[in-house]
Amino acid sequence: MQTPRRMSRLEGKVLVAQGGGPTAVINQSIVGVTLEARKFTQVKAVYGAVHGVRGILNEDFLDLTRETTHNLERVADTPSSALLSTRDKPDEEYCARMFKVMRRHDIRYFFYVGGNDSADTVRIINEQAESTGYEFRAIHIPKTVDNDLAVNDHCPGYGSAARFVAQAFMGLNLDNRALPGVLVGVVMGRHAGFLTAAAALGRKYVEEGPHLIYLPERVFSKERFLADVDRVYRACGRCVVAVSEGVQDETHTPLLVSLRDHKEHDAHGNVQLSGTGMLGDLLADLVRDNLKIKRVRADTFGYLQRSFMGVVSDRDAHEARELGELAVQSAMWDNVDGSMVIRRPVLNYSVTYGLVPLSEVAGKTRTMPAEFINEEGNGVTDAFSHYCRPLMGSGFPESHRLRAPHVPKIEET
Amino acid sequence: MQTPRRMSRLEGKVLVAQGGGPTAVINQSIVGVTLEARKFTQVKAVYGAVHGVRGILNEDFLDLTRETTHNLERVADTPSSALLSTRDKPDEEYCARMFKVMRRHDIRYFFYVGGNDSADTVRIINEQAESTGYEFRAIHIPKTVDNDLAVNDHCPGYGSAARFVAQAFMGLNLDNRALPGVLVGVVMGRHAGFLTAAAALGRKYVEEGPHLIYLPERVFSKERFLADVDRVYRACGRCVVAVSEGVQDETHTPLLVSLRDHKEHDAHGNVQLSGTGMLGDLLADLVRDNLKIKRVRADTFGYLQRSFMGVVSDRDAHEARELGELAVQSAMWDNVDGSMVIRRPVLNYSVTYGLVPLSEVAGKTRTMPAEFINEEGNGVTDAFSHYCRPLMGSGFPESHRLRAPHVPKIEET
Repeated sequence: MQTPRRMSRLEGKVLVAQGGGPTAVINQSIVGVTLEARKFTQVKAVYGAVHGVRGILNEDFLDLTRETTHNLERVADTPSSALLSTRDKPDEEYCARMFKVMRRHDIRYFFYVGGNDSADTVRIINEQAESTGYEFRAIHIPKTVDNDLAVNDHCPGYGSAARFVAQAFMGLNLDNRALPGVLVGVVMGRHAGFLTAAAALGRKYVEEGPHLIYLPERVFSKERFLADVDRVYRACGRCVVAVSEGVQDETHTPLLVSLRDHKEHDAHGNVQLSGTGMLGDLLADLVRDNLKIKRVRADTFGYLQRSFMGVVSDRDAHEARELGELAVQSAMWDNVDGSMVIRRPVLNYSVTYGLVPLSEVAGKTRTMPAEFINEEGNGVTDAFSHYCRPLMGSGFPESHRLRAPHVPKIEET
Repeated sequence: MQTPRRMSRLEGKVLVAQGGGPTAVINQSIVGVTLEARKFTQVKAVYGAVHGVRGILNEDFLDLTRETTHNLERVADTPSSALLSTRDKPDEEYCARMFKVMRRHDIRYFFYVGGNDSADTVRIINEQAESTGYEFRAIHIPKTVDNDLAVNDHCPGYGSAARFVAQAFMGLNLDNRALPGVLVGVVMGRHAGFLTAAAALGRKYVEEGPHLIYLPERVFSKERFLADVDRVYRACGRCVVAVSEGVQDETHTPLLVSLRDHKEHDAHGNVQLSGTGMLGDLLADLVRDNLKIKRVRADTFGYLQRSFMGVVSDRDAHEARELGELAVQSAMWDNVDGSMVIRRPVLNYSVTYGLVPLSEVAGKTRTMPAEFINEEGNGVTDAFSHYCRPLMGSGFPESHRLRAPHVPKIEET
């Protein structure tokens, strides 16, 4: 329902919700929506749906008009979805039931914070609203640690998760340097390698790990992987590897599946890749069995990387907050629907925000552009570092090492 | 070689090294040793052995007298062992070879930062020195994320790792609340459950996870575990579990071994427990198969918990630094050997440092006292929280949640 730009006089309630996996800054967006919406006289109340669309279906709303500004500010600084989340993907019937509830409560503005599945949910609801002649505004606010939304330069949630991954690999590299061997770190990312690629951002000295980075954008060859690890290990005496959980073989089968039959699927038909250490362990076995290296370890970052308490990019938090505020301003001042997007007009670094039709974002997946991946398909380029660094925010820690000279050996007498 | 308290006039070089697993603050101790040792005129140079005792054997020393104070301060703030580490456990012959090197370089003061294996290494070297009539001072400086050294109230390295574990579980709990299910987090700890117990320190609200904590100090019963998870899940609709990697069944077999034959042993004859997600995955399978719960996930913290860049307890860092300085002062002013220890004269909170004979610490393991573990053996007590909280340092993050009232449901008309 793209309508001419004039202020919305539509009186009613605002509903805000969150869908999909949490991030470290997702609450910034719902707090942005809530605080901004409370300023408009057309808004009779601001409701938060508990557990996303499922909360709408179940008529499970919190009255955020009754929440203190001070507590909202504190919730904004807390990771994971304060309104709780859902993996439900509404169909026509699900949406029809939601509308009955929305109408009953006079919901006229809907803001849904989520990834491409959530954008698709907003699109379906919006089409339903239009087809049933129910006037309301619906805006999707992006978030995802995978950074895989179309149109956007980057997505809220990514910068903080990237910072966690970079800091984690800084530590793993130092640990592996102290007690050498092969260390495989498995990072989230089903189709897009952005988060895994961030592992490179903690490197400071030339020979520091991760020495190898494998992304879902490139076919993963076991033989090539073993040859790479062997080469690095022979040269450096150690090897740190970053692997996306979603790496696939030449038949587009996730490696976890091709290495081992693994059955659980979620409601969206996706194989479960997170919440298990299996891929890392299988890769470690591969190295151990084929290269005869004794000390081989695998660490799977799991849910720590998207909800860790205390590692947040201030820039990421700021942008997530602004998107929430701007979504409300767009609905109110411009009376439009759509998906909020972040663009980067210059690389060194500024953003502009915009609103695009939901169909441009819904259900679509963006992956790493070719110029961010090295030719060998086992690392990232400086262009990627340049892209990613500002997203991780200020105060990024730096590692330091001893540079004292070696003591000459004394001849045995 | 406990000798009368008089200042050491022994001229020669200082050697400092690190052994065993790294920690976030271990470099504070070597920097404390280096900066303090450089003040004494008896000290002709301060050497750092690269890769612990192995560096001594290989005559691989850095001349820390040639390192800038400013860089040392930055290295102190960097996690993991800047002098690199080793798992070697010297025997008599190994020690004899080390002494040849030490004598050649006129090493007269030896400071070794490590756990109970490293303390034992210092003890062996010290006995060797005495039996061969070589005059020198040797002091062990404690560090271990496991917090399992005898005599000590707590060990440097533990507070920072505990903070990481607590912050990680704060995030995992919030994530699990947003998308409910069962989440098992596996934490380091072979014999002592201190680090796993720290998972409880992030809890703020009554029903927050971890709801269950399993420690190596109590026999792990699969049946009991399943009954516990089932009870919590039925009551809360979700369940977060913290498990030590070292939990054992009634036959004292590590659960990882009893659940699956797993062969790799390290040089100390220990089964490899870290660097694999297997225990978590096996426990998740146990829950999935027996309780018919669909969403079951396991996260294994792995090496992140001991070397993560950017999560440090300031108190931990301070104490690690002081122990390094005091070790040198003890050797110089008091001319004694031993193991530095931390004691806590009052619970609310202060420490005193001391020096005890190496035999009191070497090779010994301290586990969680009974008053820190609840009666059911599946959680910790307030006494433990009171013990652990100050060790995690200042500025510990706090989570916040929405407290807005629920909107009354509207009757369908």
